[in-house]
Amino acid sequence: MSTPIDPEMTHAALNAFLRAEFPQVAERLALSDVRAMGVSLRLHVGPAQLRPGGTVSGPAMFELADVAAYLAVLSQIGPVALAVTTSASIDFMRKPAAEIDMIATADLLKLGKTLAVVDVKVFSENDMNRLIARASLTYSIPVY
Amino acid sequence: MSTPIDPEMTHAALNAFLRAEFPQVAERLALSDVRAMGVSLRLHVGPAQLRPGGTVSGPAMFELADVAAYLAVLSQIGPVALAVTTSASIDFMRKPAAEIDMIATADLLKLGKTLAVVDVKVFSENDMNRLIARASLTYSIPVY
Amino acid sequence: MSTPIDPEMTHAALNAFLRAEFPQVAERLALSDVRAMGVSLRLHVGPAQLRPGGTVSGPAMFELADVAAYLAVLSQIGPVALAVTTSASIDFMRKPAAEIDMIATADLLKLGKTLAVVDVKVFSENDMNRLIARASLTYSIPVY
Amino acid sequence: MSTPIDPEMTHAALNAFLRAEFPQVAERLALSDVRAMGVSLRLHVGPAQLRPGGTVSGPAMFELADVAAYLAVLSQIGPVALAVTTSASIDFMRKPAAEIDMIATADLLKLGKTLAVVDVKVFSENDMNRLIARASLTYSIPVY
Repeated sequence: MSTPIDPEMTHAALNAFLRAEFPQVAERLALSDVRAMGVSLRLHVGPAQLRPGGTVSGPAMFELADVAAYLAVLSQIGPVALAVTTSASIDFMRKPAAEIDMIATADLLKLGKTLAVVDVKVFSENDMNRLIARASLTYSIPVY
Repeated sequence: MSTPIDPEMTHAALNAFLRAEFPQVAERLALSDVRAMGVSLRLHVGPAQLRPGGTVSGPAMFELADVAAYLAVLSQIGPVALAVTTSASIDFMRKPAAEIDMIATADLLKLGKTLAVVDVKVFSENDMNRLIARASLTYSIPVY
Repeated sequence: MSTPIDPEMTHAALNAFLRAEFPQVAERLALSDVRAMGVSLRLHVGPAQLRPGGTVSGPAMFELADVAAYLAVLSQIGPVALAVTTSASIDFMRKPAAEIDMIATADLLKLGKTLAVVDVKVFSENDMNRLIARASLTYSIPVY
Repeated sequence: MSTPIDPEMTHAALNAFLRAEFPQVAERLALSDVRAMGVSLRLHVGPAQLRPGGTVSGPAMFELADVAAYLAVLSQIGPVALAVTTSASIDFMRKPAAEIDMIATADLLKLGKTLAVVDVKVFSENDMNRLIARASLTYSIPVY
């Protein structure tokens, strides 16, 4: 777990990748931090993410977690690899505020030759001490 | 598991609920079947659901599974209950075709007083024999 | 998903493998059926599997599910491969009777080059219509 | 998440509970720490926990995680409540050494009225920086 960050996938490179390859989500998701083995991603909460009762939808949080985890993997293995999500489990623990942006922190727990496992914690931006949701996602890394 | 379908949540009632309460997703999701302990839901695959390489995104499939499971629960307990997803696990097993609608079949495995567990299978519409993804979702049902 | 059963892993071969390689569990687990893409395994419920209140422990059911899934994978790829469980999710839905043997049915949902996904359903033997637990297990298959 | 530890469930009380109620596992599991919102539990690795190739079995790690999580819940709600595991997901990330005891740290992520969610990390005792497995377990707390 001591691999240094691929210099091609700095904050700027990952951000450019996000905007080029995921135009469908780039207007609502913004990379806020790139660390040694992880990234932080922000979800701009708008009407499309809300559900009755004034809360953020589960699928919107899942998308935030999945893209954050994917970027954490790419930050290490570079943009060429076609990693795909193979499994995910998520616990929704608290109701997020409806009009506050959300932050996901994604950290690599394992980066093997064929599998990566990523831990994702999801918070409302104004309270980074109260976990809203927590996910574990597994990515299959193609063998060349 | 022998509870009859709540007559207030027939196909028409569930469909009206989906359109009224989930306007954000009602243009891409359509209820196609309501059974004794389950429902089928269709995802209209459009550009917003695609990812690089011409495949349907994981979060789009998660949303399909989550809404299908939620409607399966509501078909039994009625529209008033504020059930919320508490946990979900999903396995993505095959790459779906990019331009084919997807179908989720959601079946109640357990309907308890405080928890419901729903099994969801996701297919491309043109091949209902090849599982694309499979999910298990748990809903917390409020105690009054 | 049409691969025929490896003739080296018939019921007798799988059973011999279970007894030789898993002597720690072979006295409580017995292979009861080998199908085209799955197996059934029986757990003999004894005092070591019980918990306070007269029910079968979750870990005992997890072991039953894990060994059943592993044998389902080996029935297809043969006994030499060192497949390892990489992830598992399980829902415990009903309380099993304390003195009834349990049956797990394990079916391959996907058998890829590097990953296999197995669905496992767990029942009390006297009621194969009421699901006690349901699991999804993923195995990593070594690439040679 | 600021509830103090129930004074009836100190280290000594939890340990006594473990030995009285789980005699089947008390000879291989030992409580090593009780914290504000969590516990640490040790698995003595013996022949019954091993698998071919000299590694600790997945079900042995699952049992360690499940009992640790259960004790973390009871340390807060006291010994009378009949909490039951309703779902669990676990990622097995590295092969543990065969002859080293294992340690699970279980921390409450949520303690609600009817559901508790616990994060569990599993290590080999001689390397608490390398995660062997990570689990998320949900317990249903009876409503009185």
